[in-house]
Amino acid sequence: MGQVSWKGLFLSLFDYKTEKYVIAKNKKVGILYRVVQLSILAYLVGWVFVVKKGYQDTDTSLQSSVITKLKGVAFTNTSELGERLWDVADYVIPPQGENVFFVMTNLIVTPNQRQTTCPEVGRTESFGSQTPTKLGSVSIPDALCYEDEDCPAGQAVVAGNGVKTGRCLKDRDSVRGSCEVLAWCPVEKRSKPKKPLLGSAENFTVYIKNSIRFPKFKFSKMNVLATNNESYLKTCRYSTEHPYCPIFHLGNIVRWAGNDFQEMALEGGVIGIQIEWNCDLDRAPSECNPHYSFSRLDNKFAEKSVSYGYNFRFAKYYRDAEGIEYRTLFKAYGIRFDVMVNGKAGKFNIIPTVINIGSGLALMGAGAFFCDLVLLYLIKKSNFYRGKKYEEVKSSSRKSLNSPTLNENQSPDQLGGL
Amino acid sequence: MGQVSWKGLFLSLFDYKTEKYVIAKNKKVGILYRVVQLSILAYLVGWVFVVKKGYQDTDTSLQSSVITKLKGVAFTNTSELGERLWDVADYVIPPQGENVFFVMTNLIVTPNQRQTTCPEVGRTESFGSQTPTKLGSVSIPDALCYEDEDCPAGQAVVAGNGVKTGRCLKDRDSVRGSCEVLAWCPVEKRSKPKKPLLGSAENFTVYIKNSIRFPKFKFSKMNVLATNNESYLKTCRYSTEHPYCPIFHLGNIVRWAGNDFQEMALEGGVIGIQIEWNCDLDRAPSECNPHYSFSRLDNKFAEKSVSYGYNFRFAKYYRDAEGIEYRTLFKAYGIRFDVMVNGKAGKFNIIPTVINIGSGLALMGAGAFFCDLVLLYLIKKSNFYRGKKYEEVKSSSRKSLNSPTLNENQSPDQLGGL
Amino acid sequence: MGQVSWKGLFLSLFDYKTEKYVIAKNKKVGILYRVVQLSILAYLVGWVFVVKKGYQDTDTSLQSSVITKLKGVAFTNTSELGERLWDVADYVIPPQGENVFFVMTNLIVTPNQRQTTCPEVGRTESFGSQTPTKLGSVSIPDALCYEDEDCPAGQAVVAGNGVKTGRCLKDRDSVRGSCEVLAWCPVEKRSKPKKPLLGSAENFTVYIKNSIRFPKFKFSKMNVLATNNESYLKTCRYSTEHPYCPIFHLGNIVRWAGNDFQEMALEGGVIGIQIEWNCDLDRAPSECNPHYSFSRLDNKFAEKSVSYGYNFRFAKYYRDAEGIEYRTLFKAYGIRFDVMVNGKAGKFNIIPTVINIGSGLALMGAGAFFCDLVLLYLIKKSNFYRGKKYEEVKSSSRKSLNSPTLNENQSPDQLGGL
Repeated sequence: MGQVSWKGLFLSLFDYKTEKYVIAKNKKVGILYRVVQLSILAYLVGWVFVVKKGYQDTDTSLQSSVITKLKGVAFTNTSELGERLWDVADYVIPPQGENVFFVMTNLIVTPNQRQTTCPEVGRTESFGSQTPTKLGSVSIPDALCYEDEDCPAGQAVVAGNGVKTGRCLKDRDSVRGSCEVLAWCPVEKRSKPKKPLLGSAENFTVYIKNSIRFPKFKFSKMNVLATNNESYLKTCRYSTEHPYCPIFHLGNIVRWAGNDFQEMALEGGVIGIQIEWNCDLDRAPSECNPHYSFSRLDNKFAEKSVSYGYNFRFAKYYRDAEGIEYRTLFKAYGIRFDVMVNGKAGKFNIIPTVINIGSGLALMGAGAFFCDLVLLYLIKKSNFYRGKKYEEVKSSSRKSLNSPTLNENQSPDQLGGL
Repeated sequence: MGQVSWKGLFLSLFDYKTEKYVIAKNKKVGILYRVVQLSILAYLVGWVFVVKKGYQDTDTSLQSSVITKLKGVAFTNTSELGERLWDVADYVIPPQGENVFFVMTNLIVTPNQRQTTCPEVGRTESFGSQTPTKLGSVSIPDALCYEDEDCPAGQAVVAGNGVKTGRCLKDRDSVRGSCEVLAWCPVEKRSKPKKPLLGSAENFTVYIKNSIRFPKFKFSKMNVLATNNESYLKTCRYSTEHPYCPIFHLGNIVRWAGNDFQEMALEGGVIGIQIEWNCDLDRAPSECNPHYSFSRLDNKFAEKSVSYGYNFRFAKYYRDAEGIEYRTLFKAYGIRFDVMVNGKAGKFNIIPTVINIGSGLALMGAGAFFCDLVLLYLIKKSNFYRGKKYEEVKSSSRKSLNSPTLNENQSPDQLGGL
Repeated sequence: MGQVSWKGLFLSLFDYKTEKYVIAKNKKVGILYRVVQLSILAYLVGWVFVVKKGYQDTDTSLQSSVITKLKGVAFTNTSELGERLWDVADYVIPPQGENVFFVMTNLIVTPNQRQTTCPEVGRTESFGSQTPTKLGSVSIPDALCYEDEDCPAGQAVVAGNGVKTGRCLKDRDSVRGSCEVLAWCPVEKRSKPKKPLLGSAENFTVYIKNSIRFPKFKFSKMNVLATNNESYLKTCRYSTEHPYCPIFHLGNIVRWAGNDFQEMALEGGVIGIQIEWNCDLDRAPSECNPHYSFSRLDNKFAEKSVSYGYNFRFAKYYRDAEGIEYRTLFKAYGIRFDVMVNGKAGKFNIIPTVINIGSGLALMGAGAFFCDLVLLYLIKKSNFYRGKKYEEVKSSSRKSLNSPTLNENQSPDQLGGL
């Protein structure tokens, strides 16, 4: 008997067990179920696979390298600098053309600054309230003084340019003056030109080289198409007609970002050049192309806030005949361009495919469960169906009937006898 | 018969087929199953959906643009430079305020270097062992010489400053000397000030503007809240009380990173300013706010290793009256701040929802399978239940009993007769 | 009766309901099903879990901080600059050692430029066609003129160096000349040295410090192993023998990227240094190590295209005794190294585990469905099995037979009577 059942057990491994179904000849529920099935199928095929490409494994962390190169010259004529021509080496900071580059469009020059003492706030300037400038930089309150006691020596001026020497400098006829400071003197004036100095930067062009790599798929590409002939690359300008030309007109970039170049050139700002690579690597590599978009990154909407505009200070250092160091301080306003590359590559992969199919099928199970509820509890003949679906067995009833078991020695009759 | 069965087949499409269940009146297994179901349900709802927001599609690749602006001045008095005031243009490198900025806190100045010849190792310095300096930079062994043969002309000094000229320079009374080199002379001294020159940089402040964008959801935001009034932005300092103030006190940043500013200022280092955006886009955008954290990025734990501290060399170039170029070399120690922005945005999406629900349901199936095992093989009456669950059919037994088929002409009696 | 059935309903909650199965003693289908089950199991365990680590939650957005430090000197002897030694402060741009650094290998120097007027195209140069230079920069056509009318005053020269003054400068015997421009004069010559000036940069070394952090798992690490003794870090060079040495020989980097340094040094280029962190955080942190790879990022394959090579212009500004500014313009060719860090960390997480198991199980269901199709429609005895699997019920037949229902008062005999 023992090894018989063992044999049976082994053989039974290769019996195919299939759920027993009850056919409820109920068209309502039947149609309902088909509808559920179809809608799930539609969702799975239509949405998940066709639209969302659920069969693909995606890589969103791409490596990117950007080279930028500006072209253009600007001519200015100012009191501080006289007639001056600005070329790339002058107005591009930093010069080496990385993914973030700055184009100077306006500047405040303070020439011949030396390490000495001078009033923190120059005579030319009024104190505070009278001049609410756009940047909100009211004249420095900490430098305001009535007598020398207001200027403790060695103390740095808050939001100022130097360290107090202990003296309070006044005009002969005024009661209040400004602390004397040890600093790079003369200190920078707080006035701003009303029009951008290098407004003609609008016509400069920038050449953007971007090469990307999706490490997960070992896929590389450049935004400069290798097939392009050189002359095209020299003459073309990016536009809706030339979506793959890598040369951009600065004025257009700013316009596409929804701003006016001249207005922006005055106070400066930050423009984002988004390069988006959305690649379906199941297709030909040639169909994987960059898409450019432009947006302003500093919050322009807060016109009056301190977070408006973009500027920074830098200096050029010189030595006079005696070897004494002096410098020219530049407060540079301008437009910083951030080339931001992001992308997404998708390639067929078995795992997400299985996951999506599997969960879709599981959903079908949920649908069946739902229809069961309808069949068994909602329609009027549910009671009957419930009885059919659920076959009740009690072990107490075991003696009274000879139940079928898995061992082999049953006759068909017994089976039939049930 | 043929088209009858076809008709039947078609009709049967709209019959609802539902699994036939056997009710095992076994409370143990029944309760077990309910427990399994409930725990799976709890996991699905509680963990996956409530805690992990499994119903959301997430985007972790965000575009970020950072603007930084430093404020503060420092006063120094050294033999090389005399009384000197340092302002932003002097100590911030690079000046343009990107997401990585360096604040000079200490420096070794080597003024008036010219292209000429000089000993690689200055007289003021002893050779090798005597001066084990903190950086582990023992005096250059390759420059050590006894006679001219030790200094082959044209050969660069390993880890040195120049190219050997072929001469060995000695003090009159010493047997060993240093090779003469063609270099920027005099070469930089290897001594370091014992206290940071610009220690007062601790009180400088930095204003960090960060605007982010989640491309997948087309969602943008800035860390500077538009609602903030300007005066608040001018006066506030970031702290636990002011978690959204974008102005940071350098000393605090270093302290929060678990370091002492003065100590760090001596050798330099790198501090990471992590800005984390963790946004639930199903909520209001106003609830999507940055969270700042600070950490040290160069491995401070290896005090003695060469990978300790942070410094680099740069030079300012001048020309004397004759137009001969000379330079002042700076070895700048200082703290580099890396503003690193990362974030995660989640938004409801049907696909992950379905995937999670589906796999949860599939898990229920697994639970049922497990309970079946218990019912059919573990409990003592399993034999009986097995018999009930599995209805054995043999095609050989087909003649002997009248099996139900799909064709319509069966009487209820036949059915009952089974 | 009512509350009886309620009681029954409640009790029935804890009845275990299990699908009723029909055992089809059909070895073919049975074996087929087992095969399907096994293959799915194999896929799930072998591929998803062992190979793809499907039980892990992954983080691909890592924070990275890079410090680079170059060592080496180069000696040059040119007409413009005479004997000159180049050290780190001279040839590394920018100096502060971030993740992108540029090593100058070749340069065109234009000394003593002043703001004045000069011909846009120097006499030494021929016009256009005669000199097709490698960069494809044919002499500026816009500066070509026959009489002054060709040079409208104030107009900037397209792709030129200055603004036209309105005069056309000719050699005495030639019919055509070049427009005079206001610019930094003399303008840069368009000739290029045939061999790289700083070819010896090949022997420079760079020390790369990289510290990363996986924010999701709060895991940090550095590529410089803390255990390394200092002397090793001073002497080692990265190679297949020393995969964790952070010091790289520039020549080798370029070679590993599949290029010749000397050739690349002439025109410049961009080399990507990919650092890949592929960490299984279920293992020991010590097993999470960087993997370095090198590749060229500017498209070298397009030899003749304008997108070939890498160079930029920068200037050093001086003042003469009278305080007049002049500058030395450098057109720097060189190799830009982009250190690009990316990585992937995986750690056990319950959610992906459940998703993968769940969808695998759902797939089993699909397998069963497929085998059902075979059993019920493809094999010859399918008709019989169909009959067994699907038990047909008609509500019309309800009167004639006493169907089992959910209420308790049924005798075993009734059950047996079926």
